[in-house]
Amino acid sequence: MEDQVMNGPKYFYRNISVDSVIIGYHEKELKVLLQRPQNFTKWGLPGGYVLKTETVDEAAFRIVRYRTQLENIFLHQFKVYSDPDRIKDDSLNPETFQKIIGIPIEKDHWMFDNFISIAFFALTEFSLVQPTGAAYMEECCWWNINNLPKLYYDHNEIIAGALKALKLFIHHHPIGYELLPEKFTLPELHALYETILNKKLDIRNFTKKLVSIGLIKKLDEHRNIGAHRSPYLYTFNKEKYDQLIQEEEIIVI
Amino acid sequence: MEDQVMNGPKYFYRNISVDSVIIGYHEKELKVLLQRPQNFTKWGLPGGYVLKTETVDEAAFRIVRYRTQLENIFLHQFKVYSDPDRIKDDSLNPETFQKIIGIPIEKDHWMFDNFISIAFFALTEFSLVQPTGAAYMEECCWWNINNLPKLYYDHNEIIAGALKALKLFIHHHPIGYELLPEKFTLPELHALYETILNKKLDIRNFTKKLVSIGLIKKLDEHRNIGAHRSPYLYTFNKEKYDQLIQEEEIIVI
Repeated sequence: MEDQVMNGPKYFYRNISVDSVIIGYHEKELKVLLQRPQNFTKWGLPGGYVLKTETVDEAAFRIVRYRTQLENIFLHQFKVYSDPDRIKDDSLNPETFQKIIGIPIEKDHWMFDNFISIAFFALTEFSLVQPTGAAYMEECCWWNINNLPKLYYDHNEIIAGALKALKLFIHHHPIGYELLPEKFTLPELHALYETILNKKLDIRNFTKKLVSIGLIKKLDEHRNIGAHRSPYLYTFNKEKYDQLIQEEEIIVI
Repeated sequence: MEDQVMNGPKYFYRNISVDSVIIGYHEKELKVLLQRPQNFTKWGLPGGYVLKTETVDEAAFRIVRYRTQLENIFLHQFKVYSDPDRIKDDSLNPETFQKIIGIPIEKDHWMFDNFISIAFFALTEFSLVQPTGAAYMEECCWWNINNLPKLYYDHNEIIAGALKALKLFIHHHPIGYELLPEKFTLPELHALYETILNKKLDIRNFTKKLVSIGLIKKLDEHRNIGAHRSPYLYTFNKEKYDQLIQEEEIIVI
């Protein structure tokens, strides 16, 4: 680690980082995984540098895998953030960092140049993730995406960008498979789409649409949630799901 | 220019470039603006480096403005290309470059490191553009996007990515305003959408849809294209056009 901090540009591209908005879904809320480095007051997104031997997508996968312990996660590159002042005016400075790692860090150290950040969103079922702090991280946990503190750098802006991108994305790439358990009820799926699109959807039209294109199928199983309440369980038709992703057909919900 | 070549990393980020797929539309074909540097056999996309004082979007605008002489051009960032080998195995090497500019270029010169390229597509009305070669460019002109030679680097892949992104983009961001003259006939608009989506569209449903959402309006003018053939001219309702872009509503065509 010390070698990577001191001799970073031997291994990593200078001035390039990746940041991931890892989104989970739980109790009708979208959650985002945030971390807080040691001695920091602010929280931010898990991110890291890009090795010269990998693509930016591989870098994002590597870093997300490390923080979530998930082998298969859905990741989508959505925007590059490059304001020349994006990482200035913050508590992350050479002095703070030197205190944390105990190695002298010069003011012109490569880690304190500006970084162009390539942002990804990742979708995952909330319950599968074990948030894991990286080295020098004090805390790493889920936050309600609609109720965030002021984060370090431009990370509030990046999260807003991820939500905007996700709203468009859902129309040509079904996303429930990554965010819901294998079997779900129609109201559960409906609530997920309403949450992401942040608007009311007529549940009958919504269901009709998804059943008619063959995206979901009814199982011969019920969920018992009380007297006279045992809704059918549904599951995704994975073949159709993958075909829709492949063809990038537009689905209006 | 010599100073920028020799001392690039003083001004530009290392290992970061922008490339733009500048798309025009002419006679039912999508065109792309390509350049060929001096002493090169291959063609490629106009691209350049990012100044440390600008965003990547500003860099792309600066470079596209320089090549097209257009002040207002629509630009959209769509993907980052970062294969570690993306610029290897090509005729652009220090020797060729040294011959062109007459300055000694070392093998480890910053311009011959790998570059992570942030790709944009730009849409413009074909007739407004005056293709302009940059320094060291031998030729710069429009090519039919469906009939391209093998380009240098991964630029064929970048163009394919731009077309794919444009097909999705057109569903939440109307694009005719950038690609057509101010007044157009319905068959002209219809042909543009068919060309971009690369599929047949029923012209009556297509027209009904765009008129009903208020995106286009009929003018009290005809185009005379022959005996008994004088179709009405239409124009975009710019207010509605901008509103649709703002709201990012999904339009299925």
